[in-house]
Amino acid sequence: MSDALGIAVVGCGTVGGGVVEALLRHRDRLAQRAGRPLQLRHIVVRDRHKPREPFVPRELLTDSLAPVLQDAAVQVVVELIGGTTAAREVVLSSLAAGKHVVTANKALLAEAGPDIFEAARRAERTVCFEAAVAGGVPIIRALGESLAANQITAIQGILNGTSNYILTAMAERGLPYAQALEEAQAHGYAEADPSLDVDGSDAAHKLAILAQIAFGVIARPQDITRQGIDQLHPMDIRFAQELGYTIKLLAEAWTRSDPQHPDGPRGVALHVAPVLLRHTDLLAQVRGAYNAIAVYGDIVGETLYQGPGAGRGPTTSSVLADLIDLAVGRAQRTFAAARLWSRADRGFVLDPPEQVQSRFYLRLLVADKPGVLADIARILAQHTISISSVVQHEAPEGDGEPVPLVIVTHYATTGHFLAAVEQINRLPTVATPAVYYSMGD
Amino acid sequence: MSDALGIAVVGCGTVGGGVVEALLRHRDRLAQRAGRPLQLRHIVVRDRHKPREPFVPRELLTDSLAPVLQDAAVQVVVELIGGTTAAREVVLSSLAAGKHVVTANKALLAEAGPDIFEAARRAERTVCFEAAVAGGVPIIRALGESLAANQITAIQGILNGTSNYILTAMAERGLPYAQALEEAQAHGYAEADPSLDVDGSDAAHKLAILAQIAFGVIARPQDITRQGIDQLHPMDIRFAQELGYTIKLLAEAWTRSDPQHPDGPRGVALHVAPVLLRHTDLLAQVRGAYNAIAVYGDIVGETLYQGPGAGRGPTTSSVLADLIDLAVGRAQRTFAAARLWSRADRGFVLDPPEQVQSRFYLRLLVADKPGVLADIARILAQHTISISSVVQHEAPEGDGEPVPLVIVTHYATTGHFLAAVEQINRLPTVATPAVYYSMGD
Repeated sequence: MSDALGIAVVGCGTVGGGVVEALLRHRDRLAQRAGRPLQLRHIVVRDRHKPREPFVPRELLTDSLAPVLQDAAVQVVVELIGGTTAAREVVLSSLAAGKHVVTANKALLAEAGPDIFEAARRAERTVCFEAAVAGGVPIIRALGESLAANQITAIQGILNGTSNYILTAMAERGLPYAQALEEAQAHGYAEADPSLDVDGSDAAHKLAILAQIAFGVIARPQDITRQGIDQLHPMDIRFAQELGYTIKLLAEAWTRSDPQHPDGPRGVALHVAPVLLRHTDLLAQVRGAYNAIAVYGDIVGETLYQGPGAGRGPTTSSVLADLIDLAVGRAQRTFAAARLWSRADRGFVLDPPEQVQSRFYLRLLVADKPGVLADIARILAQHTISISSVVQHEAPEGDGEPVPLVIVTHYATTGHFLAAVEQINRLPTVATPAVYYSMGD
Repeated sequence: MSDALGIAVVGCGTVGGGVVEALLRHRDRLAQRAGRPLQLRHIVVRDRHKPREPFVPRELLTDSLAPVLQDAAVQVVVELIGGTTAAREVVLSSLAAGKHVVTANKALLAEAGPDIFEAARRAERTVCFEAAVAGGVPIIRALGESLAANQITAIQGILNGTSNYILTAMAERGLPYAQALEEAQAHGYAEADPSLDVDGSDAAHKLAILAQIAFGVIARPQDITRQGIDQLHPMDIRFAQELGYTIKLLAEAWTRSDPQHPDGPRGVALHVAPVLLRHTDLLAQVRGAYNAIAVYGDIVGETLYQGPGAGRGPTTSSVLADLIDLAVGRAQRTFAAARLWSRADRGFVLDPPEQVQSRFYLRLLVADKPGVLADIARILAQHTISISSVVQHEAPEGDGEPVPLVIVTHYATTGHFLAAVEQINRLPTVATPAVYYSMGD
């Protein structure tokens, strides 16, 4: 058996603790799978004196990165502290000291991918990040290796388990948003401050990483339009169900070729938003805190990957897969071949989201008067948007309250649709600003 | 850019033609992903003069393997002729001549895995086979790389698209088996002789390969009990639906530790059979000719992989992924580390299927007389099997025909259940032999 792969783990919380435990408990199994021992040499923590889980070897604890960087036997630093400031420093100084890096930090990659990967190439070291997107779901390897022969044409992902848990509770048990969120927090899925989960930011970080692998585009978080689930009204979940759809928070990437310039750069549009999926769509069936990603490749067609999106076990599994790949020598070859976050032009540009074609769900609260539907239909027609279906239920006789009106459109350009909505919102018969979502089909 | 990877494709039918087309059409893309050109040098066919698709370069056609073996610039032979006689010869002589092998041939690996992998190790060459199981679904990489840190504890797979197409048509549109099969044939999913698809043999071959990767067991096809869908009665599909279940043809592997000998070898039982899955189970939602595999790992939990299980595009995608892995140098490292079909003991033995614990669906046609249910319940109780639910619908008054009686049991040992069934079949009130399936929960 060859020499051990020396490892330092930085951060010993939920995920770090899981990695430490697995490295010690499954030592023989991991050595067998990796062809050499995976040797844990240091655990870097902020406070060495804080109580730790019983399996954490006190003698490996340190509160400074310096001994890690100076230890020539450490070949890999596993960054599991999260955040983007200290984590960035850990990653860059580890690479500069000649260590490979394994990280689960999606925010760091989404924000500083170009710097980190450039530093890694300069140092001739490898950065692995299977755990950064979708926890235990091996979507990084799927895109980068299994589907490597394909040009990816679209990605649709449920990338935030907290939001999916909330949506499932709202749809299946009729809970209002606030109560579903409380339940997610009680189960430990949602953070004390869940805003990055429910406003779509977390999913946008992950989408930026997938878009880099699949299309070579560098999407900064602010390039990705996003809409969360925090404003989602139970009424829209019910209307969607009535129409045969389920609402899911999706991170989506859609490519488009320009028929005028078939050989020019292709556009790819990215967004995170609640989307109506047909009940029979596989992503519509994904329940609770799971993640799932549907990937469309030009040779393979559609493939789908699903599993637990967060938590100790799933994230640990992905971190260990990266460590085994480094020990075997696969990761280094993948890293060199993929040239991620480099200047290599892969022929894609980011499309402005207004150009994306979609069908739309539009829900209004309107006065129960003659001519209202006619006005709305006229505005849509002026923007060349045609109507696929309308739902308006009979209102209680003469109570004068605004009534919900739901319109599903045929395919339309997002920009046209938004212009129509703006005009519809100015109608005196429309009581509150229109609510709209795109349809996933 | 480094030297080209020289390739010979053996067989130019549906899959071979797809690989040839993609190698030529996506030459630049593949070279970019692989870091070096993938150069098609020979296409070996039985009849050089047969008409071919227009993209097939006539000058590369040959009807003999000899020029391939003699061409030092050929580094990889892609075996796509199927069957086990000529294909075995192609694979073994290619390895002996120092070529790597990529194959989509599940029957060959299931039957001759030990010989082929031993020959590859002797020749210090690599055998890749992502396309051999589940077409475009990257399950080989998932088990071998992404989940490498886990001990797999169970696998449940829909591994035969033809059968799943037929079951979907029977369940959703009420078609009888024969008509659903005809439709599958008309769509090109089923072969002219579909017996290996519908009797479970094809799925058993694929399960043998997955079990080798996950557990290190060498299961010959005859070691895997199998039951196909060719005897499935629409009545049982309807009863299953009434109980909240969907019938799927599953290939399953279940591990068991012996509580008496926790450190002894663990048992793994393999079978292919129609199984009742709860409607909410993700595998129950897989429709049409798709494949899907749920994998349970001791660290990650459950992950699921789905996609098209056969056909030109999906199989081509997986063959090309293997070629890129060989060009990048990943495949060689994976092959060396995995030591598949070797004598390396991974601590698992094949369990006799009688020992597997399961819940069972039992459907009888019984005389509509007093005491029938009492007799059956008594026999089950004698074999320590308790009943979870019973369905017997009111019979048309006095027409004297036998009536269906459905019993769902709690967990029972397969051996006990089969002994009870044998005894039940001997009751004079039981009209035809009992029909039974296991439950997937």
